[in-house]
Amino acid sequence: MRPYEVIHRKRDGKHVPPEAVAELVAGYAAGRVPDYQMAAFCMAVFFRGMDDEELAALTGAMLHSGDVLDLSDVPGPKVDKHSTGGVGDKVSLALAPLAAACGLVVPMVSGRGLGHTGGTLDKLESIPGFRIHLEVPEFRRVLREVGACLIGQTDRIAPADRKLYALRDLTATVESIPLIAASIMSKKLAEGIDGLVLDVKVGSGAFMKTLAQADRLAGTLAAIGRRMGKRVSALVTSMDQPLGRAVGNALEVREAVEVLQGGGPPDLREVTVELVAEMLLLGGVAADRPGARARVEEAIADGRGLRRLCAIVEAQGGDPRAVADPTRLPAAARTVPVPAPRGGVVQAIDAEAVGLAAMALGAGRSRVEDAVDPAAGLVLQRKVGEAVEAGEPLAILHLGRSPLEPEEAVVRRVRDAYALGDGARTPEPLILQRLEGSET
Amino acid sequence: MRPYEVIHRKRDGKHVPPEAVAELVAGYAAGRVPDYQMAAFCMAVFFRGMDDEELAALTGAMLHSGDVLDLSDVPGPKVDKHSTGGVGDKVSLALAPLAAACGLVVPMVSGRGLGHTGGTLDKLESIPGFRIHLEVPEFRRVLREVGACLIGQTDRIAPADRKLYALRDLTATVESIPLIAASIMSKKLAEGIDGLVLDVKVGSGAFMKTLAQADRLAGTLAAIGRRMGKRVSALVTSMDQPLGRAVGNALEVREAVEVLQGGGPPDLREVTVELVAEMLLLGGVAADRPGARARVEEAIADGRGLRRLCAIVEAQGGDPRAVADPTRLPAAARTVPVPAPRGGVVQAIDAEAVGLAAMALGAGRSRVEDAVDPAAGLVLQRKVGEAVEAGEPLAILHLGRSPLEPEEAVVRRVRDAYALGDGARTPEPLILQRLEGSET
Repeated sequence: MRPYEVIHRKRDGKHVPPEAVAELVAGYAAGRVPDYQMAAFCMAVFFRGMDDEELAALTGAMLHSGDVLDLSDVPGPKVDKHSTGGVGDKVSLALAPLAAACGLVVPMVSGRGLGHTGGTLDKLESIPGFRIHLEVPEFRRVLREVGACLIGQTDRIAPADRKLYALRDLTATVESIPLIAASIMSKKLAEGIDGLVLDVKVGSGAFMKTLAQADRLAGTLAAIGRRMGKRVSALVTSMDQPLGRAVGNALEVREAVEVLQGGGPPDLREVTVELVAEMLLLGGVAADRPGARARVEEAIADGRGLRRLCAIVEAQGGDPRAVADPTRLPAAARTVPVPAPRGGVVQAIDAEAVGLAAMALGAGRSRVEDAVDPAAGLVLQRKVGEAVEAGEPLAILHLGRSPLEPEEAVVRRVRDAYALGDGARTPEPLILQRLEGSET
Repeated sequence: MRPYEVIHRKRDGKHVPPEAVAELVAGYAAGRVPDYQMAAFCMAVFFRGMDDEELAALTGAMLHSGDVLDLSDVPGPKVDKHSTGGVGDKVSLALAPLAAACGLVVPMVSGRGLGHTGGTLDKLESIPGFRIHLEVPEFRRVLREVGACLIGQTDRIAPADRKLYALRDLTATVESIPLIAASIMSKKLAEGIDGLVLDVKVGSGAFMKTLAQADRLAGTLAAIGRRMGKRVSALVTSMDQPLGRAVGNALEVREAVEVLQGGGPPDLREVTVELVAEMLLLGGVAADRPGARARVEEAIADGRGLRRLCAIVEAQGGDPRAVADPTRLPAAARTVPVPAPRGGVVQAIDAEAVGLAAMALGAGRSRVEDAVDPAAGLVLQRKVGEAVEAGEPLAILHLGRSPLEPEEAVVRRVRDAYALGDGARTPEPLILQRLEGSET
């Protein structure tokens, strides 16, 4: 089927045969199908959606445009987690070592931060020496030796997705659930996993702003995974305020280490434990959720999670002493408090605004080619439901070497992100929906 | 506003400021806005439509991407007609001389045929010597001397529309009423007209398949014209069977001449008279429709229309003797009848199928770069409501020099285009809707 016909059918809401979808994507990746036809197709998908068969074909074509790892020679169930991204989401840093400590193999390919959301790779790179670019044989070796390896996407993983994403970014076709889902899954399925736990974030700091959208994305992701023969489960979790207290790369590493030390903010700890437990269930190393949670708690309590993180860091060229001793992480030369303009109880914290404030300090990037400052960021001193006196700090800013905005502007941003009131306030539940793991 | 934002707003159904639309089109024409962004925008317009202000901005930007004629120095009201295209639609060939004979100036820029529909330029070029490419000074001179001039679009008329149309053709965004309307009007408004009569065709042989679509297009075209300060009226006319009996370039010239000689098929004559009458009303040279029709009938009866056609042909380098003596037009070496497979009454004729049959004989083109055979085509011997005996000819094929399909295949196409039955059948009315002329 010619690209014209595929666009025409999609535009008119007719089913596109899976071979035709595959041909379109392969043609696009090879440069035979021009950008303008692909852009028209994506916009038609934005309006018409995709059925399960089309979606599997799209994902499969993007997946097979590049290398697909086969990890069947690495013993143990291969299970990964993917988060749709939020503010303060440093879960992966604690989750990967905990899952590995509990008997899973975690082949994690992560991304960088963009806009108000952070990225696992940037956080890892704040650990001195940590290498995120490993060749496949080394990736395989680390997985075999320490059970988890966290690397960046290579040019050879789903190149069609990479090309398509850049186009969508310029043509206002990013916000399409089927396109988002195919993009995520094509990269994750290239990792050679058996199962995948999805953390679909919803709220002011997330890409999905409503529970209905998040549910739809979770369902779509799970449907693709199932069609591809993988076990998939999904949690929809709240991103109405930042997760934990730290936002910024080295600051977040430190907070993830606190979780592995048995401390850390309760919300971060809870989401981490839940997600690892879900991974253990998918991987078949725990029989039920209470049992799975108990295993994770145990791996925290006896320090196996923390030791595993040190092992991962060391295996990937980083300085493991930076894990135990956070003074070895990059630190800001100066910190500045953001005083509360009045006393009261925190009613809400605009997570996106906090993410943008951290970016303004140098912790994030507005364009993919920007560099980040590992030391820059902020630490929230109050979260939703907590009381504050006028003048007490709402947050502490860690000033980077080359902030994008003057200090006062960032102070204002953070202050304005807080809604203070007089009534008591209970933060909303962290885990909003749960889509059970399933097999084809 | 950046192109991204314009696409995003349109995608979400928000109003796009007219300056932003104009900037987008100007940027596209200049090559600053890439094809893929324009393709995404067009697809978003396909789904979201455009409001009157956006549409006027789009039309204006395409219009002003090129030359806009100023004919204010040519005396008399400048009124043109535009048809959305059909099968056997040779109206312009009789209409332009009749309108000129009745006191109007008709600066007509026409197109070529594509697919199953014919084009006025191809028909004119079947007259030996006729030149459709005139420079502006010559166009102006012919208008001044004979009151009508029929030429092809130059590269300098609405180049943004030309570029955009080519893109829409490859991205399945042709069938969008606002985009169709802006494309038509940007070219017509470049002619320097005071008024425009639109013939919006509806039915099996037309682009608009339903009356509702045709109405919407007519209303949209008229709304643009009014916003641009032009008098516009529109007729929605039936294209459920071919107009007249001849389909093919020289054959259609011959039939148009018959109308000017006082004969010709009644449906063709009726649509021609109605449209010229509408032009006279718009141009203010007749006060009411009966008076306007009477003037047109008079110009046919006393031969002024025919003489005016000769004058136009001569002024544009053609052989005027070919008008009076059709044996001077290109003729097919061989004709072949299409016999009726049974006796009965013609219930319907699929106009698109007839157009495609004529194309298969060499009368049309499937790609813009194809050449047409002026002699090829067919003449219907029976129209809807007419009786036929088994074996009597439904149509006569005029075989071109290099048909695209074997003779038998075309015979089958034409035979299959006819629905024969036993009951009596009255063809549907020719003029289905009338949108009265109006001024800003």
